[in-house]
Amino acid sequence: MSEETVVDYHPMWAELGLDLPTHDALLGAVGQMYGAAFLTQENRPEGMSYLDFVVSEVHGLRIKELHDFRAQGGKVVGTFCLYVPEEMIRAAGAWSVGLCAGAEFGYDEVEKIMPRNTCALIKSFMGFKLTRVCPYIEESDLVVGETTCDGKKKAYELLGELHNVYVLELPQMKRPEDVAFYRKELGELQGKVEELTGKAITAESLKTAIKEVNDKRRALQRIAATRAHSPAPISGKDALLATQVAFYDDVPRYTQMMNALADELEKRVADGIGVAPAGAKRILVTGTPMALPNWKLHDIIEKSGGIVVGEEMCTGSRYYDALVAEDGETVEEMLEAISAKYMDINCACFTPNQGRIDDILRMAKELNADGIIDYALNFCTPYQMEAFTVDKAAKDAGIPLLKIDTDYSAEDMGQLSTRVEAFLEMI
Amino acid sequence: MSEETVVDYHPMWAELGLDLPTHDALLGAVGQMYGAAFLTQENRPEGMSYLDFVVSEVHGLRIKELHDFRAQGGKVVGTFCLYVPEEMIRAAGAWSVGLCAGAEFGYDEVEKIMPRNTCALIKSFMGFKLTRVCPYIEESDLVVGETTCDGKKKAYELLGELHNVYVLELPQMKRPEDVAFYRKELGELQGKVEELTGKAITAESLKTAIKEVNDKRRALQRIAATRAHSPAPISGKDALLATQVAFYDDVPRYTQMMNALADELEKRVADGIGVAPAGAKRILVTGTPMALPNWKLHDIIEKSGGIVVGEEMCTGSRYYDALVAEDGETVEEMLEAISAKYMDINCACFTPNQGRIDDILRMAKELNADGIIDYALNFCTPYQMEAFTVDKAAKDAGIPLLKIDTDYSAEDMGQLSTRVEAFLEMI
Repeated sequence: MSEETVVDYHPMWAELGLDLPTHDALLGAVGQMYGAAFLTQENRPEGMSYLDFVVSEVHGLRIKELHDFRAQGGKVVGTFCLYVPEEMIRAAGAWSVGLCAGAEFGYDEVEKIMPRNTCALIKSFMGFKLTRVCPYIEESDLVVGETTCDGKKKAYELLGELHNVYVLELPQMKRPEDVAFYRKELGELQGKVEELTGKAITAESLKTAIKEVNDKRRALQRIAATRAHSPAPISGKDALLATQVAFYDDVPRYTQMMNALADELEKRVADGIGVAPAGAKRILVTGTPMALPNWKLHDIIEKSGGIVVGEEMCTGSRYYDALVAEDGETVEEMLEAISAKYMDINCACFTPNQGRIDDILRMAKELNADGIIDYALNFCTPYQMEAFTVDKAAKDAGIPLLKIDTDYSAEDMGQLSTRVEAFLEMI
Repeated sequence: MSEETVVDYHPMWAELGLDLPTHDALLGAVGQMYGAAFLTQENRPEGMSYLDFVVSEVHGLRIKELHDFRAQGGKVVGTFCLYVPEEMIRAAGAWSVGLCAGAEFGYDEVEKIMPRNTCALIKSFMGFKLTRVCPYIEESDLVVGETTCDGKKKAYELLGELHNVYVLELPQMKRPEDVAFYRKELGELQGKVEELTGKAITAESLKTAIKEVNDKRRALQRIAATRAHSPAPISGKDALLATQVAFYDDVPRYTQMMNALADELEKRVADGIGVAPAGAKRILVTGTPMALPNWKLHDIIEKSGGIVVGEEMCTGSRYYDALVAEDGETVEEMLEAISAKYMDINCACFTPNQGRIDDILRMAKELNADGIIDYALNFCTPYQMEAFTVDKAAKDAGIPLLKIDTDYSAEDMGQLSTRVEAFLEMI
């Protein structure tokens, strides 16, 4: 026995209805992937030890917290998308958690109920649900989906047969009437979460939640800003992990730990300490979100000698770049501010989406990127289509770009490595 | 010289900027396909001679009509989707035409600007535009797109760089607030088409247009109703063609000719005359639209000894099953009626979409179908996803269903024929 008490979470997982042998296999595989991708890195910031711990307890201690919270009457809301405002969920007294995806799991079952050529993210979350290995969804009293893309929109119909699902309708453009439509949808969501928790969203609770979530984003902005320096003080993989964990962890604790990490990174910048050798090619990654444990592309880039300095994605700048205005006093004013902030996120599901192109070019410049890698999941139509526009804009701006379409499997790792290595040499 | 004057349309096509050699090759190929699919049929209704003529002149006489109309100051609006109300376009004094798709053309060019794994319909319309072989789009002063699916939504951004494109935003659900949103969008469309033609949509012009388009739909309803009888008085291929031509032809002339065809079919029903042998398996086809000249699946089914008795698709019942209420007196009332009718079309882009499942089961019963073939274009996420729901509903209702994913190529014809033959034998 070590000095720490080893907790056996199997009884809790069994209570949640997880398929224990399959879940054990999943945890084993993720642990192995994590070790190979993260723990082999040199000169990591000390602050990463918190995230190492979080990942080691991602189905353990964190689930126990959710479990205990629910045992005391708390409600948990699971989401898959940035457009579901976590501020509102918190303000109604519930906890917001991201749901499992990011790994190839249960595809045999998934392909019985949806097409083989569905994007990996959707197949993954359905696979986790069908094979009962995602404790987050099992702890979710409600899943809030959204109509961002054709695949998710239709998948929520199927998920709705297996779980309590509410779908938020998004507009497809960003004109004033679309923002107004989204604002009305938030009114519906408000009713839904208030009904779930039995607690009204008040001016006070919403103000607090906006501040708490903004603080989380501010911490991530601090980390992101340090990556503009050369040498970068943190690997892209570690920075990506920080953003991924933002969707799962307790908000104030996570914010505190990320600010501590930011302190350390700022000190590193001041001291000229970095994680990549001088001359390592600096890469901005843009595209579809990378749900935990999807570290594939970052791992390939950084094992090929490059360094990822930014992510223009939902698990990246789209999550933390903008804040909700904090000067609202009434619930109405604050919901307006939430609408404005969220409708300013530049997902490829919107048309037109010039804002995303502008963001990419601005970030490439600000982060001193040597090149851009456009990452799309196979069969993700919005990002695969928009990749051509991104490519053209990057070329016009004189920035080298490599376009990658992939999924969560390891099958194309060799081929991708070859392409990434060639790209890093070329730029 | 024959007695008819042979008109050489090449000067007109050249004036439109078509690529003449490529366009000649396209017309040759379509003519050959048409001959093999249509003119080999036995005992066709005499009324089909009109449609044979229309197809033979689809890039000729009809384009000349559009050309002459525009020479006199008329405006032409091209569309790709049922959700763009042709009544409004007509009421503003413009003509509405469907645009080219339905054939594999110019894919080499298309794949330079969009992903290979884009659905055939989108690749086709972009291919026609990029290779300059679609006189309809070249005669269109404005193309009105819509946000029905991810692929089209993003493709219109690309098409917008090549043509004058306006995009109508569709909601993604069908709640009262969604119908209200669509109604407002129609207000925007009204402004757009009025600006194009310089003519206001008046109560009188809109009432006339509603009546004219309803009359067209009524004629198609009459044709569709005869197909419920056994033996069916018209092949599925011929009936599909009738619907396909509805998007291109002059409205009053087409309505008159389709009513004449319906008269003939009703007489055939009364006389017990049919086109398929007694005992031919009766098939309802459901799924993605079949743009002219896409006759592939119908051709396979009917050459395999089956008979298609209905199409639950946009080139089928979704187009003509419902009418716009004719009792509106003001423009406002009539636009409300148009909103209500169009938002009642059950496209898989909506969620939830139980209405479509109900339609399919009702049609299968009313048309005395022996089986259903669910047809989806590869990479059409909404229909490919919903196919699983359709399959389950059909199974639950005890109706055999065959699911087919395909494209416009001839490559899988042999394999599809084998599957269809096996299905027809099995049911």
